[in-house]
Amino acid sequence: MLRLVRRVLFQRGTERARLSSGWVHRAPDVNSFAARTNTCGELRAAHVGQEVTLCGWIQYQRQGLFLVLRDFQGLTQIIIPQDEAHSHVRKLLSNAPVESVVRVTGIVSSRPPGQENPKSEALRMQYRYLDLRSSQLQYNLRLRSQVVMRMREYLCNHHGFVDVETPTLFKRTPGGAKEFLVPSREAGKFYSLPQSPQQFKQLLMIGGLDRYFQVARCYRDEGSRPDRQPEFTQIDIEMSFVDQAGIQRLIEGLLQYSWPEERGPIMTPFPTMTYDEALADYGTDKPDTRFGMKIVDISDTLRRLDIGFVQNVLTYPHGTAKAICIPQGARYLKHKDLESLKEAAKSRFNQEIMDVICRPDGSLKSLLTKFLGEEQQSELIRVLNMQVDDVVLLAVGDHKRVCSALGSLRLESADLLEAAGMVLRDPAALHFLWVVDFPLFLPKEENPSELESAHHPFTAPHPLDTDLLYSDPTKVRSQHYDLVLNGSEIGGGSIRIHNAEQQRFVLEKVLKEDSEVLSHLLEALEFGAPPHGGIALGLDRLISLIVGSPSIRDVIAFPKSFKGRDLMGNAPDYVTPEELEPYHIHVSWPAAETEAKKN
Amino acid sequence: MLRLVRRVLFQRGTERARLSSGWVHRAPDVNSFAARTNTCGELRAAHVGQEVTLCGWIQYQRQGLFLVLRDFQGLTQIIIPQDEAHSHVRKLLSNAPVESVVRVTGIVSSRPPGQENPKSEALRMQYRYLDLRSSQLQYNLRLRSQVVMRMREYLCNHHGFVDVETPTLFKRTPGGAKEFLVPSREAGKFYSLPQSPQQFKQLLMIGGLDRYFQVARCYRDEGSRPDRQPEFTQIDIEMSFVDQAGIQRLIEGLLQYSWPEERGPIMTPFPTMTYDEALADYGTDKPDTRFGMKIVDISDTLRRLDIGFVQNVLTYPHGTAKAICIPQGARYLKHKDLESLKEAAKSRFNQEIMDVICRPDGSLKSLLTKFLGEEQQSELIRVLNMQVDDVVLLAVGDHKRVCSALGSLRLESADLLEAAGMVLRDPAALHFLWVVDFPLFLPKEENPSELESAHHPFTAPHPLDTDLLYSDPTKVRSQHYDLVLNGSEIGGGSIRIHNAEQQRFVLEKVLKEDSEVLSHLLEALEFGAPPHGGIALGLDRLISLIVGSPSIRDVIAFPKSFKGRDLMGNAPDYVTPEELEPYHIHVSWPAAETEAKKN
Repeated sequence: MLRLVRRVLFQRGTERARLSSGWVHRAPDVNSFAARTNTCGELRAAHVGQEVTLCGWIQYQRQGLFLVLRDFQGLTQIIIPQDEAHSHVRKLLSNAPVESVVRVTGIVSSRPPGQENPKSEALRMQYRYLDLRSSQLQYNLRLRSQVVMRMREYLCNHHGFVDVETPTLFKRTPGGAKEFLVPSREAGKFYSLPQSPQQFKQLLMIGGLDRYFQVARCYRDEGSRPDRQPEFTQIDIEMSFVDQAGIQRLIEGLLQYSWPEERGPIMTPFPTMTYDEALADYGTDKPDTRFGMKIVDISDTLRRLDIGFVQNVLTYPHGTAKAICIPQGARYLKHKDLESLKEAAKSRFNQEIMDVICRPDGSLKSLLTKFLGEEQQSELIRVLNMQVDDVVLLAVGDHKRVCSALGSLRLESADLLEAAGMVLRDPAALHFLWVVDFPLFLPKEENPSELESAHHPFTAPHPLDTDLLYSDPTKVRSQHYDLVLNGSEIGGGSIRIHNAEQQRFVLEKVLKEDSEVLSHLLEALEFGAPPHGGIALGLDRLISLIVGSPSIRDVIAFPKSFKGRDLMGNAPDYVTPEELEPYHIHVSWPAAETEAKKN
Repeated sequence: MLRLVRRVLFQRGTERARLSSGWVHRAPDVNSFAARTNTCGELRAAHVGQEVTLCGWIQYQRQGLFLVLRDFQGLTQIIIPQDEAHSHVRKLLSNAPVESVVRVTGIVSSRPPGQENPKSEALRMQYRYLDLRSSQLQYNLRLRSQVVMRMREYLCNHHGFVDVETPTLFKRTPGGAKEFLVPSREAGKFYSLPQSPQQFKQLLMIGGLDRYFQVARCYRDEGSRPDRQPEFTQIDIEMSFVDQAGIQRLIEGLLQYSWPEERGPIMTPFPTMTYDEALADYGTDKPDTRFGMKIVDISDTLRRLDIGFVQNVLTYPHGTAKAICIPQGARYLKHKDLESLKEAAKSRFNQEIMDVICRPDGSLKSLLTKFLGEEQQSELIRVLNMQVDDVVLLAVGDHKRVCSALGSLRLESADLLEAAGMVLRDPAALHFLWVVDFPLFLPKEENPSELESAHHPFTAPHPLDTDLLYSDPTKVRSQHYDLVLNGSEIGGGSIRIHNAEQQRFVLEKVLKEDSEVLSHLLEALEFGAPPHGGIALGLDRLISLIVGSPSIRDVIAFPKSFKGRDLMGNAPDYVTPEELEPYHIHVSWPAAETEAKKN
């Protein structure tokens, strides 16, 4: 009963291949009278382990490793046997042209969770419209729509915010290296797709709009970065005559109002932590406060140790000794886990880590113990609240580096504990946190004697630190605030500079930037700018946290791949030289470049 | 009391210059004790005719014709006298560097309405944040926000539409010559900014989203065109399992629900007219039905005329004689108005126009009368319902050309009648109209033997004409519909082809296009597409009609100029070759091109 278009590659009973399930959508009774038991795409978790027969077209085939079978209902990935006994099958399939019709019998298997084949991921993107039929994506997109609608009601109907659309064809901002360019019809002139409506929302305040919001499309060209999208969406807010606390209460109310019932309620106000506290206690500016394991300062205990290196470090201005205590680490973590944690700190932070294990008898096991007196051991146990089987990771060095390394180890060991079965974080918990009092400027990485804005140059200095701006800018705290949920940054904003002179001072004297490119903003500030501030919430991340998805691509209808490509429509794509002509550009092909260099 | 920064250019009483008022915003009492009577930007209509003195900085100066004076409160445009007696003033001002401080005394004048200086218009764009403070722009932007919010409530809360964001970085569609390009980091590959989310919304239907809407940013690179913007906004809607009438009722309900009270109410359902009727009666596919003056067919009357040319034309397949009657034209229109109307028809449509005037005694005055018997004159008067002083414009020729020319003259003469004081159209009237049954294909202008889509290639044929698609595609009507308000197109949409085979036939056999670039859409249609259709409303135009503004730039916060430039931020702008490097492009400077051609 099977119509053969090109050739039958293998038939019932002759061979078996492992099947892994593809996408799921509605399945009418279409298998009666036919040579198949199921349609492609019909397979679900319930089918795993069953022997099934599928018929369809070869959609895609990859180096004899797997192929994708297609019929009118969907796709199924077919794993091709790699053992010698099946070499003729592998050969047959490797040589089969795509669109060949085949019948396949095999055992259904599901992909191991967390180990999805990246090639299959690409396939999901290519057939996104089929993926969209899944109940999970339908739920995610509908929930996203509802949450945004509630946010609009709160801002627009309850609080008089004005939804204003701002341009996305603008020009480069200083340091806007990550901005996409759009060639114009004027030779040599380009628009730029802005990373945020920052300038426009400030200009709207200067224009007297008083309260602005926009669900704003933003653009960032970062090349390949995991779970980033070249275009993304911000809930963008700005208001006049407001202070930091005002913005914080607004956002708490906004989230409380728009949060889905099944994931609520949210308790407000959210706790606040300074940047210095966050760094000292959690080693990061976005602490996951759903669990403890905070960083503990043990400088006082170790200062009395007879180790030259330690004593030496502790005399430095930022020298410190700190530790985290992994509860039940000796039971839940393997030796290689501990080793890889230490290696990670070494390779990523250039920070040596020592471990201390609390033995069942309460004594400590460590390379360090021979330098520790009994009193110091007791003090360490007391300060770190060590219990039997706990593991302490300990670091000595520069404050920021030590904290960052331990903060990173804290998160990784939490993941390891949970992977080993410990219940550390309540998956339903919602830990919102404001992080405030960031430094206004940071030393440039490539040249630490110069300063750059910690966030952006429009951020106002902390009111208590305004004088320092002119005397010692490195010490100035900012009026920037970040909103953190369960260890992810979901928003950030600031009170802005509304004084032209101060803005010019920051740009020209502190940042040493050419302020010409921002002359319109500086000029606008001269025309009477109200005190104003705002925030932007990362909508994609926020929704992915609400639906409990690890990737923002699960809450975007048509996401781009890691490499910024649309695998469904095949974008970006080549264009003809004629199409480039009106824009006065042509392509520098790498080959041509190479030749040019030779000549 | 005047502090001089560079030099005083002229002082009280020495010279006078005409002042025209700039922008208006809040004015505290800041003129006491000072050498001025007013601040810049403080001048309103009430000041016109008064002598005032302003002090400020020269913001801008243009070829000795005018300058812009700035102080802390705003800007005033100063017209420099051009007569010989003031030549020394003109010279002084022409040579003065910008930022010079001056005091100016003169008589306030306002710009004549409708004759705004395009340079002043540019200035308004450059200082858009000041213009935004005007009550008109504040009203427009707030109303826009509210109308869109109501639309969202209707679609999202009342009718279960899902607000889905679709990508704006995509790839070129066939014939997408007006799409902006965005260079990617892959050499030679470009994204494209789409003109609408057309493909995505159809894919969402195939993906089972059922009902989609989006307030979508769209892009179109048309170079310089009046009152078009390179980026604009559509209320974009698509739904499954719907027919044309379903979409029409949805949109009527949407507009009724979201229409501002002060401009309502709206009566539904809106009347419907076929494309053929619209062309025959109004000479356009977007008839302004707020007034009569419909096109009347007088072929039968003129067929009996003894003029060889007329009789000849009327034997052609599409030969026709038609006319419009301008009520009281002889009283309201000047001779030169009539001449310019006739010239416009000649130059723009290559169509000769004859006029016939109804004298006070009821007789007709025309070059034509000597060919008309008494009976025919009476018939013409009766058919066209001519009254004393009416003017008839008459055309003989090809149906489409005659209708288009008379339709255009109908609108122009209506404007002339109104400018001369006749009340023809009620400014509060809202004449919505559906235009339906468009042709599906049109002959290509450059090669009439080939066909192109009248709208886009995804439009479904009229259900009664499906068979014609395969036999005589030129005769197929489409399921496209346009929504017209007071003679402006405010929306358009269609039921789409949901059958892959039919879509492929249209693309390959009728349009002779390479369907490869749309392979993802064709493939998607094969995966089970529901019958679906949708519409897009032009939000900018719709809001400008609601607020009664002639230009969409009055309802956009930061519009671009006619040439697509942002005059405030100076976009597009030059970028460095280094910034182009990651995108593998370089600029073809026109000069370099010229040189290349020489060699």
